[in-house]
This record gives sequence, structure tokens and C-alpha cells, in this order.
Amino acid sequence: MALSDETPLAEVGEFELIEAFIGLYPQGDDVVVGPGDDAAVVRIRNGHVVVSTDVMVEGRHFRRDWASGGDVGRRAAAQNLSDINAMGGVAHSMTVGLTLPTDLPVGWALDFARGFADECAKVGAQVIGGDTTRGDQVVIAVTAIGAVTRAPVLRSGARPGDVVALCGRQGWAAGGLAVLTRGFRSPRVLVEAYRSPEPPYAAGGDAAEAGATSMIDVSDGLVADAGHLAVESGVAIDLRTESFEVAEPLHAVGSALGADPMQFILGGGDDHPLLATFPSASAVPMGWQVIGEVLEGSGVTVDGAAYEGPGGWVHF
Amino acid sequence: MALSDETPLAEVGEFELIEAFIGLYPQGDDVVVGPGDDAAVVRIRNGHVVVSTDVMVEGRHFRRDWASGGDVGRRAAAQNLSDINAMGGVAHSMTVGLTLPTDLPVGWALDFARGFADECAKVGAQVIGGDTTRGDQVVIAVTAIGAVTRAPVLRSGARPGDVVALCGRQGWAAGGLAVLTRGFRSPRVLVEAYRSPEPPYAAGGDAAEAGATSMIDVSDGLVADAGHLAVESGVAIDLRTESFEVAEPLHAVGSALGADPMQFILGGGDDHPLLATFPSASAVPMGWQVIGEVLEGSGVTVDGAAYEGPGGWVHF
Repeated sequence: MALSDETPLAEVGEFELIEAFIGLYPQGDDVVVGPGDDAAVVRIRNGHVVVSTDVMVEGRHFRRDWASGGDVGRRAAAQNLSDINAMGGVAHSMTVGLTLPTDLPVGWALDFARGFADECAKVGAQVIGGDTTRGDQVVIAVTAIGAVTRAPVLRSGARPGDVVALCGRQGWAAGGLAVLTRGFRSPRVLVEAYRSPEPPYAAGGDAAEAGATSMIDVSDGLVADAGHLAVESGVAIDLRTESFEVAEPLHAVGSALGADPMQFILGGGDDHPLLATFPSASAVPMGWQVIGEVLEGSGVTVDGAAYEGPGGWVHF
Repeated sequence: MALSDETPLAEVGEFELIEAFIGLYPQGDDVVVGPGDDAAVVRIRNGHVVVSTDVMVEGRHFRRDWASGGDVGRRAAAQNLSDINAMGGVAHSMTVGLTLPTDLPVGWALDFARGFADECAKVGAQVIGGDTTRGDQVVIAVTAIGAVTRAPVLRSGARPGDVVALCGRQGWAAGGLAVLTRGFRSPRVLVEAYRSPEPPYAAGGDAAEAGATSMIDVSDGLVADAGHLAVESGVAIDLRTESFEVAEPLHAVGSALGADPMQFILGGGDDHPLLATFPSASAVPMGWQVIGEVLEGSGVTVDGAAYEGPGGWVHF
């Protein structure tokens, strides 16, 4: 659609708005990767610094009755650390911008900070700054800064003939969210997966080392994020459902809710596994599972057919 | 006060909360400057990278009926660029986290981005990333990343016998805000100063080069920020009102509102001049004005007496 200055954001697509923003931000020669990938990479003096920013809003990305402050803190850190990981980088420093309502119990805020610090400690990153101010709702804006010591792995390098592989749990958080949405608290392992993801922090560097041709962290949904790789690389991707071993708790939730557990795996976000492409199955590192292939063409298919299930995440 | 987990933030002091946060964030050996100064400095491989984060909230830091999207964008960039400047650093890259309400006209958001990019261009910084999501109010979380090629100028280096000097307009934004608060739109030059500050971006490097012993950007208020230098350096600071030439528009507003124009200069924030200390008056660079001296003791005085006027900024 054409953007008029009076168009309310409600009528504007996420990518349209982002494209419009990016068009307004000139990039210099020393920006190795600018807006549009998992993280930006800039050359500062002798080093390559990786930077990623994410914003989480209460009521939209989390609910305080579904997750503790510590859970939200861990998740806020995890999703940014995962973005650095998805570039093949190592996170080093974090900043945290917060708006908090005045009626928030201070314990929630402290619990948040503890959870945040705990998650950062998993990769040796430290919180080096931030800003906190009053607002109508809890908003969390995190910036992660890291280093890459080799060429960063972008979204745009997948080539026909590559294999598609995944590392980390996928669909568990979506299963947990489905449970919580219906007022239940079990299976507990899925609820915990939703509250506190466990991204495979070592996997990004391994994949880069192994020659991954493209990589992304799955936060919007597996099909949606595979779609980002396909678009940026100018290829098609086919995922094979037979390659997934559906974990028992996902079967249980599927039965209880009358849902196909594959919908959590294909459509779910928030687990932050890594999705990458490699030149061949023999190049795929330990801990990764081959789940599909890269083809000529465009778009994402599942078992060779269009995917009609629940999809990704639309911001506006 | 003692913090209980159930204490609402409304009853907790800003610094108490920040201290509590900082206590939860361990700092490694390679963090040159951690939380608590204008910006954090980290050693990444061969370089020193400077990082600063600020959050602005609609209704608290700006009003959409008092400032255009472009004005707010310029201000959001300026206050972060100014923090890098206040370390003696040069800003290189920016990230922008946004929450925006769905009824916001897209023109406002685009105007914001334009203003933001324009301000960044003044110092050659570029926007390398960000995140935008829906929220109840406009929240802007900016992270600025820069480099320092010499030792950063901290808040803690002022010594008795140093002179205190200021570079840039001071009090104009507060005068403009006072005008807007009373429903007026003139003097226009003050309203513009409030809407779109003009920090002295070259002055930070000059001051560092000239041997500034401490430095801060004035955002909370002149007396309040002098107080930050005094506390961090363990010294007293006396400011001399006779050293300020009160600009004509400030006189005009003072007369119109029945206020002493010095209250805008001493209490006002938002202009983002730099405040620094130097070993002697002869060391003060061109463009800076000596406005006081550093003494043994603690606290900030004005003409030797306690300052009782409007003060700084309390976040909660």
C-alpha cells in the first residue's frame, strides 16, 4: 500500500514500516551489516562489533501473571544473546532501557534484573549500562553488543542444494503458551520453556566454523523465519515434517487441546533455536538436525506443499 | 529506605533503584567504565567502544502537541550523542527501540526517523539497527555506540583548584518549556531550543584534548549535573551567576512570567551543553566559558550559598 502521512500504523504492515525507516537511515562504508539481519555489524577501529536491539512490551510479549520478573529478565536477555549467536558472534556487553509503571512492586524489577544478569552470565556477557524511567506499561529495550572473529553468517547466503538444519528445542514455548492461554499450568516443562527459553548459545559459533551459508534465530516461527532466509537468499526452502521427533509433552498438549503438535513446531516462536543452511549434510555440526533442503525458486513449503497453519508475528 | 520486594516503585528513589540494579550486574576486568557515568566504555579486541542508552516516554519527556516527530527524533538522537561527546568520544552507530500506539499517524513515525537521522548525520553517526513494536504510548530507547581514542573523561576526576567551565547554550530549553507550559509559543527561539537542542558536538573531544579532569552533559539541570561531578569527584563546586551573560530571550521570558531568568540557567535541563573541569583557566579551550571553581568539601553552591531553586529530574 502507499503510505500517506495520515495513515494510522494499524493499517501499515510491519515490513513496510521497517523498509520506510531503513530508507531514511543512510549506511556508511564501514557498516558491514546494517538493518535487516539478526544483528548489525560495524567496523570500529581494528575490531568487528556486533549489535542487536529488541523491545518487549507487557501485555504483548509477556504477561506478569504468566511469568515472573526473573523469567521476563531471562527471556529479554536470551532473545538478544540469541541474535548475536545467530551471526556467529559472541556477546560481550548489554544495555537495558526500561519503562516501568509506578505501581509495579520493586521486587518484580529486581527479580527482572537478577534473571537478566543470570542469563547474560551463561555466555559471559555483562550489563554495562541502561536507563530506567516511568511509563504506563513495562517496556524493555535491550541492546546486545558482541564481537565476531570471522565473517558473520548472514541470512542471505543460502544456495540451492544446501541442507537446512536446526539446533535447539522448537515448539516447546508455543506449546507452553497454548497451555497458559487456556488457563492451565501443565505440562510444566512446556510452561517453563515458554517462560525461560534455553537457546543453544554455543551453536552459532560452531555453525560458522562449520561453514554455515546462512543462519537465523527462530523467534517469529519456524516457517516464518525460514521464510526470511528464503527471501534474503533468493531461494526456496522445503521443510520435512518426518525429520522432527515430536517430544512427548507436545503430543500431550496436542491431545489435550485437540491440536496437531506440528503446529507448535512449524508456527511457534520464542524458543530461539538456530536455523541454518550448510553446503552438505556432512558439514552439519554435532547437535544439529537436518530438517529440510534449499531449492531453486522462492517461498517455504512443508513436505512440498504450501503451509497454511498458524504463522509468524505481525508487529502492527 | 530499606527496599522490600513489595514496595511500589512510587516510593523508591531513582538512585536507590539504580544502585540496586547495579549491584545485581557483575562487571568484568575489561569494562573500563560500567554503569553510573554518562556512557559505558568497554574494551573489545583492540578498540575502546563507548556505549550509551537513554529512554524517552511520551507525556513525560515530550508531548506530541508541543513538538513534531522530527523534533522528538532530533532530541532522542541528540541526548545520546551528547553522552558520547561527554566522554570525549566520537559516536559511530545508533540503535533505536520504539513502542508506538496503533493510532499514531505514520507520518509522525517517519518524521521521527528523519529527524533522528538528521541529528546523527551532524556527527557522522549511523543508525545500524532497531526494533519497533506496538505499545500504549510512544517509548523511544536509543543506544549510541562510539569510540574513544584517548582516556575517556569521567565524572570523577575534578580536583580542588580546578576551574568549572561550560560549553553550549544553557537555560534556553527550560525557558522554552516554561513558555509552552503556559500555552504560549514565543519567544520562538526558546521554543525551538526546547524542541530541538543543539549540543556542542565538537566540544567533548576538544575538552579531552585540553586535559579536562571531569565532564558531564547537562541534561538534568546545571546545578543537578554539577552535583553529579561533585559527588563522583568528592569535591565541592561553586558556580558564579555573574559569569553568565543572560540572553535577551531569557530576560523576556523572565519578565513575562515574573520569574528570575537565572532559574532557567541554574535549574534547566535539555539543552545538553557540556560541563567540565580543567586544571586552570588557561587550559580551557575556545568556546568554553569559566562559570565556577572546584573547592574542598562537598555539594554545589551558587555564589557561595546553597541553591534553593528548581532542581533536577527525578525519574520515579
